[in-house]
Amino acid sequence: MIGYQFMGKAHSHAYRDLPFFFDPKIKPILKVVSGRNEEAVKEAAEKMGWESYETDWRKVIERDDIDVIDIVTPNHTHAEIAIAAAEAGKHIITEKPLALTIEEAEQMYEAVKKHKVKHMICHNYRYVPAVQFTKKLIEEGRLGRIYHFRANYLQDFIMDPEFPLVWRLKKEVSGSGALGDIGAHSIDLARFLVGEFKELVGTTETFIKQRPIGEMAGGLKGKTGGKELGEVTVDDAVAFIARFESGALGTFEASRFAGGNRNKNRFEINGEKGSVRWDMENMNNLEVYFDDDEPGLQGFRLINCTEEYHPYAGNYWPAGHIIGYEHTFIHLIHEFLNGIAEDYQPTPNFEDGVKNQKVLQAIEKSSETRQWVEL
Amino acid sequence: MIGYQFMGKAHSHAYRDLPFFFDPKIKPILKVVSGRNEEAVKEAAEKMGWESYETDWRKVIERDDIDVIDIVTPNHTHAEIAIAAAEAGKHIITEKPLALTIEEAEQMYEAVKKHKVKHMICHNYRYVPAVQFTKKLIEEGRLGRIYHFRANYLQDFIMDPEFPLVWRLKKEVSGSGALGDIGAHSIDLARFLVGEFKELVGTTETFIKQRPIGEMAGGLKGKTGGKELGEVTVDDAVAFIARFESGALGTFEASRFAGGNRNKNRFEINGEKGSVRWDMENMNNLEVYFDDDEPGLQGFRLINCTEEYHPYAGNYWPAGHIIGYEHTFIHLIHEFLNGIAEDYQPTPNFEDGVKNQKVLQAIEKSSETRQWVEL
Amino acid sequence: MIGYQFMGKAHSHAYRDLPFFFDPKIKPILKVVSGRNEEAVKEAAEKMGWESYETDWRKVIERDDIDVIDIVTPNHTHAEIAIAAAEAGKHIITEKPLALTIEEAEQMYEAVKKHKVKHMICHNYRYVPAVQFTKKLIEEGRLGRIYHFRANYLQDFIMDPEFPLVWRLKKEVSGSGALGDIGAHSIDLARFLVGEFKELVGTTETFIKQRPIGEMAGGLKGKTGGKELGEVTVDDAVAFIARFESGALGTFEASRFAGGNRNKNRFEINGEKGSVRWDMENMNNLEVYFDDDEPGLQGFRLINCTEEYHPYAGNYWPAGHIIGYEHTFIHLIHEFLNGIAEDYQPTPNFEDGVKNQKVLQAIEKSSETRQWVEL
Amino acid sequence: MIGYQFMGKAHSHAYRDLPFFFDPKIKPILKVVSGRNEEAVKEAAEKMGWESYETDWRKVIERDDIDVIDIVTPNHTHAEIAIAAAEAGKHIITEKPLALTIEEAEQMYEAVKKHKVKHMICHNYRYVPAVQFTKKLIEEGRLGRIYHFRANYLQDFIMDPEFPLVWRLKKEVSGSGALGDIGAHSIDLARFLVGEFKELVGTTETFIKQRPIGEMAGGLKGKTGGKELGEVTVDDAVAFIARFESGALGTFEASRFAGGNRNKNRFEINGEKGSVRWDMENMNNLEVYFDDDEPGLQGFRLINCTEEYHPYAGNYWPAGHIIGYEHTFIHLIHEFLNGIAEDYQPTPNFEDGVKNQKVLQAIEKSSETRQWVEL
Repeated sequence: MIGYQFMGKAHSHAYRDLPFFFDPKIKPILKVVSGRNEEAVKEAAEKMGWESYETDWRKVIERDDIDVIDIVTPNHTHAEIAIAAAEAGKHIITEKPLALTIEEAEQMYEAVKKHKVKHMICHNYRYVPAVQFTKKLIEEGRLGRIYHFRANYLQDFIMDPEFPLVWRLKKEVSGSGALGDIGAHSIDLARFLVGEFKELVGTTETFIKQRPIGEMAGGLKGKTGGKELGEVTVDDAVAFIARFESGALGTFEASRFAGGNRNKNRFEINGEKGSVRWDMENMNNLEVYFDDDEPGLQGFRLINCTEEYHPYAGNYWPAGHIIGYEHTFIHLIHEFLNGIAEDYQPTPNFEDGVKNQKVLQAIEKSSETRQWVEL
Repeated sequence: MIGYQFMGKAHSHAYRDLPFFFDPKIKPILKVVSGRNEEAVKEAAEKMGWESYETDWRKVIERDDIDVIDIVTPNHTHAEIAIAAAEAGKHIITEKPLALTIEEAEQMYEAVKKHKVKHMICHNYRYVPAVQFTKKLIEEGRLGRIYHFRANYLQDFIMDPEFPLVWRLKKEVSGSGALGDIGAHSIDLARFLVGEFKELVGTTETFIKQRPIGEMAGGLKGKTGGKELGEVTVDDAVAFIARFESGALGTFEASRFAGGNRNKNRFEINGEKGSVRWDMENMNNLEVYFDDDEPGLQGFRLINCTEEYHPYAGNYWPAGHIIGYEHTFIHLIHEFLNGIAEDYQPTPNFEDGVKNQKVLQAIEKSSETRQWVEL
Repeated sequence: MIGYQFMGKAHSHAYRDLPFFFDPKIKPILKVVSGRNEEAVKEAAEKMGWESYETDWRKVIERDDIDVIDIVTPNHTHAEIAIAAAEAGKHIITEKPLALTIEEAEQMYEAVKKHKVKHMICHNYRYVPAVQFTKKLIEEGRLGRIYHFRANYLQDFIMDPEFPLVWRLKKEVSGSGALGDIGAHSIDLARFLVGEFKELVGTTETFIKQRPIGEMAGGLKGKTGGKELGEVTVDDAVAFIARFESGALGTFEASRFAGGNRNKNRFEINGEKGSVRWDMENMNNLEVYFDDDEPGLQGFRLINCTEEYHPYAGNYWPAGHIIGYEHTFIHLIHEFLNGIAEDYQPTPNFEDGVKNQKVLQAIEKSSETRQWVEL
Repeated sequence: MIGYQFMGKAHSHAYRDLPFFFDPKIKPILKVVSGRNEEAVKEAAEKMGWESYETDWRKVIERDDIDVIDIVTPNHTHAEIAIAAAEAGKHIITEKPLALTIEEAEQMYEAVKKHKVKHMICHNYRYVPAVQFTKKLIEEGRLGRIYHFRANYLQDFIMDPEFPLVWRLKKEVSGSGALGDIGAHSIDLARFLVGEFKELVGTTETFIKQRPIGEMAGGLKGKTGGKELGEVTVDDAVAFIARFESGALGTFEASRFAGGNRNKNRFEINGEKGSVRWDMENMNNLEVYFDDDEPGLQGFRLINCTEEYHPYAGNYWPAGHIIGYEHTFIHLIHEFLNGIAEDYQPTPNFEDGVKNQKVLQAIEKSSETRQWVEL
């Protein structure tokens, strides 16, 4: 694994926990974690159960005892690492977004295809049981033709003007702001559930344009910026409207300025025969409406997706005992290892990463040109 | 009152009920209701408590014992009636939208200004206690600078392809579909709470393009269309993104194809210091978040706006005893009569109607030109 | 109508509003309202639309032009007035509880039976559309055998120790506290939906035993008590467990010391085939669960009981437009007038009042004797 | 660890996961798991990561390399194993209930005291962050004097009359039904949050008195009972009312016949200054009401207890990323190991188990004698 911070923690945990709840055909062994700061990576390796650590990711890729490379580094480093890993014949799982630009993303996708390695991108929200169950309902035609997909991803962690200019707020490191960080998740959910985008129009906004220069001690908490101000070069919020190839109409909004919403990743789908509502903050719940329910008894059903009938849920606890955020990674990695073991290419993968990136770029272009952009 | 159907019922009830709960300085007397179908209007007059009826609205306007004209006829007739009423020196309250075109709307506004009559337009949702209370919080600065206004108005009553081609689905009568019928309410709420629109981009969609020709017996229920199909000339749904003059970002969606949503008129506001969420289906509730609440104890408060502290609520029942849809009209008409009695011009009025119409037209234009439109 | 305060307002409004929304076979005429304070009753008569007023209720009963007596006076006066009214051949509707004691209640019931007048008691919550719809589901066997009835009625308006010793807190006037005032409503809902009580055990509690002597200016608001303290002679809260004749198990709690609950009147029913949940604070909503819903898609449906399929709802507004507290009285009085017109005895009536009283008395006895009490 | 089924899985996982998220002073090593069925326990050992297995629990206790014994066997075996483990000087953690009878429970408690070993009982719901946070609010006096504690624990997994007569339905193995299985959790939460019980009155009910003899293949799912019927010797549901030593009034209900409630473990607390509501099905959420919030802005706050301010939550993910059922065991075991490392006796422990048992027994006694029972 290359990198070891927030996402490194989530991935490491998933590798450890997977064999406990599931029977993966390949059992992951946590060989080596890599990071530039020796002290920190050493501590992380011990804490998270990795057998060894490296300070140069190239050494990890060179090792013969490594079959899988997991990339959880900042966004601007994904491409170089992934391409090198593909060339070394390693299967690759990477955090999203795939890269900072489409060119990079396509090179990455070419590399994995050329070297015939399996690849995934961590759009983990696809792997919430309630979301997988929604996919199943749609595929079975239970919602009929889809008319509307309506998604928000709302956070509030940078609303304080004193929050420092962390890497996530610098375009050269992160690529974009709310758009790529959280909006990309909504785009992936839309593509997963409703299909490909046809065209879109949107706009981005940066509400606080300058912030104290400085990083934070741990994760996203605290404020350690100094008095000097630097330019925020990414968006604080983005809104866009889209048409899907299927004819469905999509409305999207992602913001880090929506007070009271710590991690409100939600969507609603309205179809010809039924509707669905979902919200990550209560991720086990799914609200489902069927138009053919008996008149007078029609209403959204609040389904706690913790039963054996709900994808993945049967491997945990009895009905009504919920799971959490970390379990999404277990499911995604389960699928990844299955793909390696059974030689099929799971999703979401680098192709999805490229397509997602194209949507992100289309939004940026639309925001600049103030025009609809075709995909 | 000119007209006597759904909205006529709501208005008539409000005139009757107002003096019971409030002490209006002018007590309304239900003199005369007008409609073209004599039998129907006679029955309506009796049922709703009007002293007399007319089959020609011009006769109503000519009557000396009439001070106020209330227009609840189909949209395409508003302008002619209102202008005639203004010329006759009558105070006017009209259903929304003000007119089918901006030109008509402006003529109406000119007429009421010229003849110095009071005028209102029935954007009744402003008059929900929870909405009025939201306005108060914003005016007091409790939410700080507003970043986001997010509104949906979702219905599902025409999803059945067999639903006939009623007047609401004909552009020449209704002006537009979801846009003017329900989107206009969201626009009014936005203007009331966040201020004027600066620019917007949006799109409309008609999912079912042909429907059986025919009207319905009573209100919106039943399907009496025949086998012949006619063209639906209005939108089934609309989505648009807007910037407000204040810099806030707005996202809007109105649809009649959102299954399970009978009348889901809702908005969310995210400001610098706090957020608000509201939903007409539980209209007495308001969710309010304050960023300066103690850490660890921050969360949306679910406030049942039925207390004396909430506008209008103190005139009804003890706290916790809710009111309903019809009460919004009582409050709006209360304000109207107050305006007449104390000689001030209440809101929302014809000026608001004109501005609303301009936003509606901008959306239509944006939908056609696929461009942002400035207001 | 004898009395004119909170309940007088609710009843008066219902008489006025009924013919607007419904077609009662008898149209009520608001002849005369009675109260001891001439100035106040005169003002109330004008405000609420009564043709005349009296300061002696006996005079009302003597009048020949009066067919119906509506009693909304404090609890200890119900019996005398009702019996006199029955003797005068008037139909009677009274606020609950029927009386302070079972003896009185039974005398009242005897009187109305002897004089063959129609009679009702205002357990208005039966007449919420969602509650009526629940009754229908049960009668149709949709929930199967009922296992559990679980009801709370929670308020918080007297939690402040400075709240004065109003008549509701004096046993000699009100009969009991939370028990008779709000617990009686839960008992009525239980009897309506699940049937008769077989046995129960319970306890009452008075958390604040002394309060400032004094009344309040208007309704339940404000604190005008002096420095002198008096004894609270009623319960602040009551809890009891019951078995119904059907074998269902009931749990009940009523309290005026449940902070944050302004008027939380709620119940849950669990049956062999399904469950129901309801809460007066969002009274239009009903949550319904069916055990024969498809596996994986089982969950409580949130039904907005505002459709033509829901009792009474079709007479108001289109689906999704809610009604409020006051409408429960309209429905109850509609039923009362229907009963008079068609010569049948509607429910809930004095017989229900007697049975309710017997349950109340059983709870008080159980609380004193610390024993189960059979009914 | 003795036993390896549902609870064995939860405990095993917690030992594995604890060092990943926390820094326990003692790092657990999963030495040996014991079970009577060799094939099954061998498979469980491999699956759950135990180094070895035994088919005789006595051998586990004899081993010198074992410091901690974790008992997750059926209820009737707890006492013998725990006493033997205590005599062998092992620290002990056991599933609830402590034993089938108070005599056994007290012997267990005597044994651990005599042999000076640390001991805990798995009332894991205490260790939900939202529940720990509630405790903190109460201890800080934020709710003031507690008036009401209102708890339900509702399930529905045995409602089908074809559900077989599993060990949980036999008194000699399980001790009681809903009472000891789930009601015991509510009792523990009550003791944790409100303090000791003073007296209670209650009743139990068995709705389905005979069931097909047979066990189930895996966990709680499926129906493998035969045609022969056997007697259900435990309660399906229990309801009781209690007074706490503090003067608070408690109402409790536990049932396995509450359709639609898979695992609805919820409570509400009403205090002098505030109220709290919690529900295990959305266990990260806590609703908190403060009476000293500004008038008009009073309402239950919906707090997502996933922030660093909420006990344990800071060790997982950023705010808004929820955790699940299994994490409660991590926290409880964290506390257990801390107790061993720092030589203090954590709670809930065998003393709590004895007290819980006394409440359970009091309820059974009250149910039989139909009297209040003092504790």
